[in-house]
Amino acid sequence: MSDSNKKIAATIETVTHQQATLDLSIALMQRPSVTPDDDGCQDILAERLRNSGFNCEFMYYGDRQVKGEHAEVKNLWARRGTTNPVICFAGHTDVVPTGDEKNWTYPPFTPTIANGYLWGRGAADMKTGIAAFTVAAERFVANHPEHNGSIAFLITSDEEGPSINGTVKVIEALEARQEKITYCLVGEPSSTDTLGDIIKNGRRGSLGAVLTVTGKQGHVAYPHLACNPIHAAMQALAELTAATWDNGNDYFPATSLQISNINSGTGATNVIPETLEVVFNFRFSTETTEDELKAKTHAIFDKYFEDSHFEDTKATYNIDWKLSGQPFLTPEGKLVSACQQAIKAVTGTETTLSTSGGTSDGRFIAPTGAQVVELGVRNATIHQVDEKIEVDDLGRLAKIYEGILENLLLD
Amino acid sequence: MSDSNKKIAATIETVTHQQATLDLSIALMQRPSVTPDDDGCQDILAERLRNSGFNCEFMYYGDRQVKGEHAEVKNLWARRGTTNPVICFAGHTDVVPTGDEKNWTYPPFTPTIANGYLWGRGAADMKTGIAAFTVAAERFVANHPEHNGSIAFLITSDEEGPSINGTVKVIEALEARQEKITYCLVGEPSSTDTLGDIIKNGRRGSLGAVLTVTGKQGHVAYPHLACNPIHAAMQALAELTAATWDNGNDYFPATSLQISNINSGTGATNVIPETLEVVFNFRFSTETTEDELKAKTHAIFDKYFEDSHFEDTKATYNIDWKLSGQPFLTPEGKLVSACQQAIKAVTGTETTLSTSGGTSDGRFIAPTGAQVVELGVRNATIHQVDEKIEVDDLGRLAKIYEGILENLLLD
Repeated sequence: MSDSNKKIAATIETVTHQQATLDLSIALMQRPSVTPDDDGCQDILAERLRNSGFNCEFMYYGDRQVKGEHAEVKNLWARRGTTNPVICFAGHTDVVPTGDEKNWTYPPFTPTIANGYLWGRGAADMKTGIAAFTVAAERFVANHPEHNGSIAFLITSDEEGPSINGTVKVIEALEARQEKITYCLVGEPSSTDTLGDIIKNGRRGSLGAVLTVTGKQGHVAYPHLACNPIHAAMQALAELTAATWDNGNDYFPATSLQISNINSGTGATNVIPETLEVVFNFRFSTETTEDELKAKTHAIFDKYFEDSHFEDTKATYNIDWKLSGQPFLTPEGKLVSACQQAIKAVTGTETTLSTSGGTSDGRFIAPTGAQVVELGVRNATIHQVDEKIEVDDLGRLAKIYEGILENLLLD
Repeated sequence: MSDSNKKIAATIETVTHQQATLDLSIALMQRPSVTPDDDGCQDILAERLRNSGFNCEFMYYGDRQVKGEHAEVKNLWARRGTTNPVICFAGHTDVVPTGDEKNWTYPPFTPTIANGYLWGRGAADMKTGIAAFTVAAERFVANHPEHNGSIAFLITSDEEGPSINGTVKVIEALEARQEKITYCLVGEPSSTDTLGDIIKNGRRGSLGAVLTVTGKQGHVAYPHLACNPIHAAMQALAELTAATWDNGNDYFPATSLQISNINSGTGATNVIPETLEVVFNFRFSTETTEDELKAKTHAIFDKYFEDSHFEDTKATYNIDWKLSGQPFLTPEGKLVSACQQAIKAVTGTETTLSTSGGTSDGRFIAPTGAQVVELGVRNATIHQVDEKIEVDDLGRLAKIYEGILENLLLD
C-alpha cells in the first residue's frame, strides 16, 4: 500500500475497533450487574468468545443463589489455545451501587453518549475494558488464527464486593489442575490524565490491625483509682504514627500507616473509660514484610506498656491483625515492554510505571508466578455519580490490547 | 454531778440525739425526692425550724413546674438571729435515681433498719446529714437561746441535677441583699472509713475542654491527598497527657488531666476521617489557674499544628472550654478547728483535711468569702444500689454538729 492508503486503512481499522467496542460496552452497561450480580454479562462474552474459538467454562462459588443462577458468584474462564505462553485478560462484570439515581445526569444503566463521553455505571470500572479486550481478541484471532500460545479471559462478578468467591477461587481451581497464566493484563482503569499514561506493575501490600487497650474505669476526679486506656496508649500511638517503616524502592513508595478509626469513652465527661479501640492499616512495599511490620509494632507497644504502671492496675493491649494482600511486583520485562510499546504505537505516550493506589484482583494472580500489569481507561470518575469515559478512548484501548497480543503471541 | 452521773447524762443525751435524728431521717427518706423534686422534705424542715425560732423563706427558681410547686426547684433559706457570725448548714433534699428497684435489698424509699444499718436512697447522700444538723440546731437553741451570731440553713433540691436553679441562685439572692455567710458546713458525706475521719476543706477546680481537629478526608491508600486529623493531633495529645501542670501544695494534690472521650473515624477501615473529637478535663489545684491551663494547652497544640503540613492541606484545631468550678480552700482557722475539736470530742478521731474528690455546692458558696468545710457521714455507698449508713453514726453526727455550733457561737 502507499503511505496514503496505509493511513486510510489504519483509520478504517480504528473506526471499526471504535464502533465494535462501543456497541459491546453499551450491551454490557445496560445490565444493572450490581455486585455480586453478573446479570447475564458473562453470557454475552462467552457467546462472542466461542465464535472466536474460545473454550468457555463457568465456575460458580458461594452458597447463596442470585436471580436463579447456580450460586452467589458466577465466574468465566475462557481460553483459546492449549500451549504456553498464556496471556490472560482479567476483569469483572460487577459494578458498585449507584447511590440515589436522581443524582445522575443520565440514568446509570441507560448508557448515554453526550459531549464526547459515554455515561453510565461501569463506563470506566470496567465494562469498557472488558469490551475492548474482547474486540481486540476477536480481531487478533481473525488476523492470526494460528497465533502462538493461548489467549484467556478470567472474568468474575465478585471484585467490588468481598472478593471471596471470585478471582481467588478461580485461581485455586486453575492451580489445582496445574493450569498457569504467563502474562496477566488486569483491565482496571489505570490511566490518570490520558489513556495509557500510567500502568500499574505491582501493588503495595495491605495489612489491617485492630488495637484494643484495656484499662480500668473510674471517675476523672480519682485518676489514681482508675487506669485510663487512652493515656496508656498515647505515647505508643504517637511513636507509631511518627515512625518510618522503610524508604520504598524504585517501584514502591515508602510503606505508610494510617489510623482510620479511634474510639473510647462513655459519652460522660467525668468518667475514665475502660477500653480504647484503634483501627489502623499499613500499605507496604516489598522493602518490608508482614512479619516485620507486626514485630516493629509490637516492640513499640511492649516498650510503653512495660513502663505504664498505674497504682496496682495496669493497662494491657491486644492487636488483631488481618492481611488483605501481600505486595507484588512485575519488574520491567516482556509484559511491561509489550504494554509500553503498544501504548506508544497507538497514543504516542511514554507510559509511567506505578504501584500506588488500592488493591485489585492482581494480588490473587501474582502469587502464582504470573507477570501482572494493570492497564485500562482513565479512573477519574470511578465509583462516583456520573461515571463516564471519553468515547474516543474505547477504540484506542482495543487497539492497544490488540497490539499487546501481537507483541507477545507472534514471532 | 459525779463522774458516774455525768456519764449517764451523756449517754442519755446521745440516745436522745440518736432517736431524734433517726426519726427525722426516716421521715425525709420516705419521700421519693428524685432530683429536682423536693417532694415536701423542705416543708418538714421548715416546720421544725420555725418551732426553734428560725425565719424560713422559700426561694423558687426555674420555669418548669414540678408536682404543682411554683417552679422547677424549691430552695429553703432559714435563719435564726440577725447578727454575725452566720454559721450556715448547706445541703440538699434531692437524691439520685434508684435504677431498677428490684436490685435493692429493701425498697429504696422504705427506709429499713437491718444489721445495724439504715438502708434506703438518701441514707448517706444526704438526708441523714440534714436530719442531724436539724436536731443539732434544735438542741443547741434549746440549751442556748441567747447564742451569739446566727444559725442558717441553705437547702436545695437541685444538687444532683444541673445545679442551675439551686445553691448558686440562692447565693446570688443573698449577695444581692448583702447577706453574708461566715462559716459554711456542707453536710455532704465526707467520711471514708469511720465517721469524721476526713473533712474536706476545699475542692479542686474543674475545667472541661472539647478539642476538635479538622483534617481532610481521603483513602488510606492515598495519604498524601488527605490530612489525617488523628495523626495531626497525636504528638500534641501525647505531650498533653504526659505533662506536669503543678506539684500541688499542702492542701491540694497535683493538678491532673484526664481524657474521657476520643472519637474519630467513619467505621470503614480504608477511609482517613475528616475530624477528631477529644473530650478532656482538668481537676486543678490553687497552684495554677484556669487561664494558665488554657494557655499551656494552646501552647502545646500551637507548637505541633504549626509544624504539621500535609502537602497543600493542613489540619486545624479548636478547643471549646467550659469551667465547672474554680478551686477553693479554707485553710486551718476557726471553722476547721471547730470541726476538728467537735469530731475529737465525740469520736476520739484526729480528722484529716482533704481537698480530693468531685465538686460540691461548696464551690458556689466559697467565692462569697465564706469559710467552707464539708463534713458528713461515710460515703461508701452513695449513688449506689443499697445505699446505707451505720445507724449508730446518726446520733454521733448530730452531736458533732452541735459541738461545732457550741465552738463557734458561744463565748
